[in-house]
Amino acid sequence: MTDQKPPYLVPGFRFAGISAGIKKRGGPDLALIACDGDAVAAGVFTQNIVRAAPVEVAHQRVQAGVARAILVNSGNANACTGEPGTRATLESSAAVAEALGVAPELVLPCSTGVIGQVLPAERIVSHAAPLVAELNPDAAAFANAILTTDRFAKLVRCPVETDAGSATLLGIAKGAGMIHPDLDTGLPQATMLAYLLTDAKVSAEDLRAALLAASQVTFNACSVDGDTSTNDTVLALASGVHAGTASRERLERAMREVCKELARLMVRDGEGADHSVAITVAGLTTAEDARRAAHTVATSLLVKTALTGKDPNWGRLLAAAGRSGVRFDPKRASIHIGDVLICEHGMGLGAEAEARATAVMQTDDYGITVTLGDGPHAFTYTTCDLGHGYVDVNAGYRT
Amino acid sequence: MTDQKPPYLVPGFRFAGISAGIKKRGGPDLALIACDGDAVAAGVFTQNIVRAAPVEVAHQRVQAGVARAILVNSGNANACTGEPGTRATLESSAAVAEALGVAPELVLPCSTGVIGQVLPAERIVSHAAPLVAELNPDAAAFANAILTTDRFAKLVRCPVETDAGSATLLGIAKGAGMIHPDLDTGLPQATMLAYLLTDAKVSAEDLRAALLAASQVTFNACSVDGDTSTNDTVLALASGVHAGTASRERLERAMREVCKELARLMVRDGEGADHSVAITVAGLTTAEDARRAAHTVATSLLVKTALTGKDPNWGRLLAAAGRSGVRFDPKRASIHIGDVLICEHGMGLGAEAEARATAVMQTDDYGITVTLGDGPHAFTYTTCDLGHGYVDVNAGYRT
Repeated sequence: MTDQKPPYLVPGFRFAGISAGIKKRGGPDLALIACDGDAVAAGVFTQNIVRAAPVEVAHQRVQAGVARAILVNSGNANACTGEPGTRATLESSAAVAEALGVAPELVLPCSTGVIGQVLPAERIVSHAAPLVAELNPDAAAFANAILTTDRFAKLVRCPVETDAGSATLLGIAKGAGMIHPDLDTGLPQATMLAYLLTDAKVSAEDLRAALLAASQVTFNACSVDGDTSTNDTVLALASGVHAGTASRERLERAMREVCKELARLMVRDGEGADHSVAITVAGLTTAEDARRAAHTVATSLLVKTALTGKDPNWGRLLAAAGRSGVRFDPKRASIHIGDVLICEHGMGLGAEAEARATAVMQTDDYGITVTLGDGPHAFTYTTCDLGHGYVDVNAGYRT
Repeated sequence: MTDQKPPYLVPGFRFAGISAGIKKRGGPDLALIACDGDAVAAGVFTQNIVRAAPVEVAHQRVQAGVARAILVNSGNANACTGEPGTRATLESSAAVAEALGVAPELVLPCSTGVIGQVLPAERIVSHAAPLVAELNPDAAAFANAILTTDRFAKLVRCPVETDAGSATLLGIAKGAGMIHPDLDTGLPQATMLAYLLTDAKVSAEDLRAALLAASQVTFNACSVDGDTSTNDTVLALASGVHAGTASRERLERAMREVCKELARLMVRDGEGADHSVAITVAGLTTAEDARRAAHTVATSLLVKTALTGKDPNWGRLLAAAGRSGVRFDPKRASIHIGDVLICEHGMGLGAEAEARATAVMQTDDYGITVTLGDGPHAFTYTTCDLGHGYVDVNAGYRT
C-alpha cells in the first residue's frame, strides 16, 4: 500500500532544492539528493537515439553500481547540444561533487526542460555551495525543484519488507508532457525523471533487476502524448543504513507499487489533462499483442479526444485496436467502460448503456477494458484525455 | 500539371448528389457516380481489421474488374454494425442498381460518418429514383454530398496522355479527420474516400497497378491524426470512351499527380488545421527507414503543436526522429525549415536562423527536411498542425 503523506524521509538520504536562475521565468530549478555514504545504484534510460548529455554521463557512471548523489536541473534539457553540452554537464556535476567532498563519478546528473540550448553550467557552479548547504532530510523541496510544466509534485512512499523489519521506499517523479517513456529495460517498449530511494540493504544486481521489471509495466506503460523524450531517466539508490536486507522479489513488489502510482500521477498531471484512464486490452494470445493493442488504443488521438468529450465512442476504441497490427475477430470484441458493457460481438448495446458509460466518464479516474478474444493475455496502459490545455502548453512552450 | 477549375467533366460518367436525411443535421448526404457503359474498375481499401460493411462489399465486387456505379452516403459509416449493417448495404445498393437498370454487383458502395450505427437503408431505397434522376455530367454536387467534417470539396483534374491524344483523369476525395490511410497496396503502411475517373481506355491490370503505386506514395503518406479509418476506400474507374489507350506508366504518372494533390487538400482541410506541411526525412540507407522516420516525425503531437505555434522547435523534430526506431548519428543530423538551415551537426544555429524559420512557418504550406545522414533514401509525409479546432471537432463529434 502506497501513501503520499509528508514528511518525505528516507534514512541515509538528504535533499535540497533551490533557485539558480536556469528557468527563464524563475523559480526552483536546481535539486540535489545526497547519500551520507556510498549508495548502491541502478538506472534505466530513454531508448531515444537522440540522448541528452546528462543521460550519456549518468548512464556511463551508474554502470559502477555505486553513487553518492543525484544532481537535477529543470528549465534546460541540455539535449542536442553537442560537445559544449557534455562539457556543461561535466563541469556542473564536478562543482557539486567538490562541494559534497566526493568523486565526480559518484554524482549522477539529470536535466529536463527546453531542448537545444546548452546548459548554463556557470549557474550551477556558482550555486553548488548554497545547494549543498540546503541539504536536509525532507524531499519536498527537491521534488518541487525538478518540475517543469507539472502542476503538482509527485512523491509516493511504500514499505519494503526486509529480513529485519520494514524499510522504506520513496519515489519522486516529474513529468507532464513529452511523456511516453521507452526505457531500456531490455524488453521492447517526456521527459520523465524518477528517483527511487530506499534505506534497505540490497545488492546492485537485485536493485537493477527490480528496477527493470518494475519500469517495464509502469513507466513503459503510460503515455501523455506518445513522444518519448531525449532525457527520460529513472535512478534507484539504496543507502543500506537499515538493518535488514530486502530480497529482489520484495523490492520489486514495492517498486511496482510506487512506480505504478508515480506513472498514474504523471498521466493525471498530463499537460491539459483532466482524466487518467487505465486502458486494458485483454483476450489476446500473446503478451506482445496485448501490449501493442493497448498502446495503440491508449495513444489514439480520436480516443483521447473522446475521453475529453466524455463521449463513450466505443467505435473509436475498436477502430484503434483494428489498426494496431494485432489480428482479432471484430465480431468477438466487447468493450467495458468502468463496469458498463457498452459493446458486445463488435456491436453497440444502445442508448441506455451509453448513458451509463457517460456517467462513468464524468469521473477523474476510471478504466476501459477492450476484450478482443478469449486468449489469456492482457496489458494495461495508462493514458489521459487530450484537450485545449495540451495545445496551449505545447503550441507556445518556448515563447 | 493538375488544375481544380469547374466544370468537372469526364466523358462517359454522370454524377448526382442529394439530401436523403441520413445526416442528423441535414444537408447533402447521398451521392452517385454512374458510367454509361461497363467501366474498368480497381480499388484499394483500409487495412484496419475492423472494416465497415460497405468496405467488405465493395472489396468483393471490385475483384471482377468491372463496375457501373459508385454509391456513397455520408453521415453514417455503417461500421461495427454486424449482419444488420451488411444487409443495409446490400439493400441500399440493390435499390440504386434497380433504378439504374444494372446488376447489383456492378454498384460499389461506400459510407462515411459515425461508427456504430446501422445505415438507415430505407432512406436510400426511398431516394434511389430521385438520385438517379439527378445524374448529370458535372461532379460538383457529388463531391459536395460525400463530405462530413470537411470544410471544402476536393476535385483535382490532370490530363492523361494516350496513343490518340489527351484524355482526362478527375479525382474526387473527402477527408478531414480519422485521416491516416493505410491502404492495402501490397506494401507495408480517416475516413478517406477517393474516386479516380478517366475516359482513357486502360486494362484492368494496368488500372489496378497504377492505383496501388500512386496510393502508396500519396494517400499512404499523409496524416491528420494518425487514426486509420474503418472505411478508407479508393476506387478507380475507366469509361474507355476516349479513342486512345493509356499505358500503365502514363496512367500512374497522372494518378500520382492527382492523388498527391488530393492528399495535400485533405491534410490542408485537416480538422482544425491551418497549415499543410510536407515533412521529408532524407539521408537514410533504406527506403523503409526513410518512410518510418518521416511517419514518426509527421505524427508527433509535439511536432504538430509546434507547427500550430509557428515555433521552429527543431529539437522536437530531432527527438521524434530519435524515437522512430531508425538508427542514425544525431551528430550528423541537419534540419531545414523551408530553405532555412536551422540545425546542423545535431545542434541549433541560433536566433537569426530561428527568426527566418519562424517567417517560413507563417505561411500555409511549406516543407521541412530532416537529413539524418548521407544515405540515398528520402520519404515525404504530408501532415498538418494540431490546434484547438481538432479538439473541438473530436471531443464533441457525436453530440
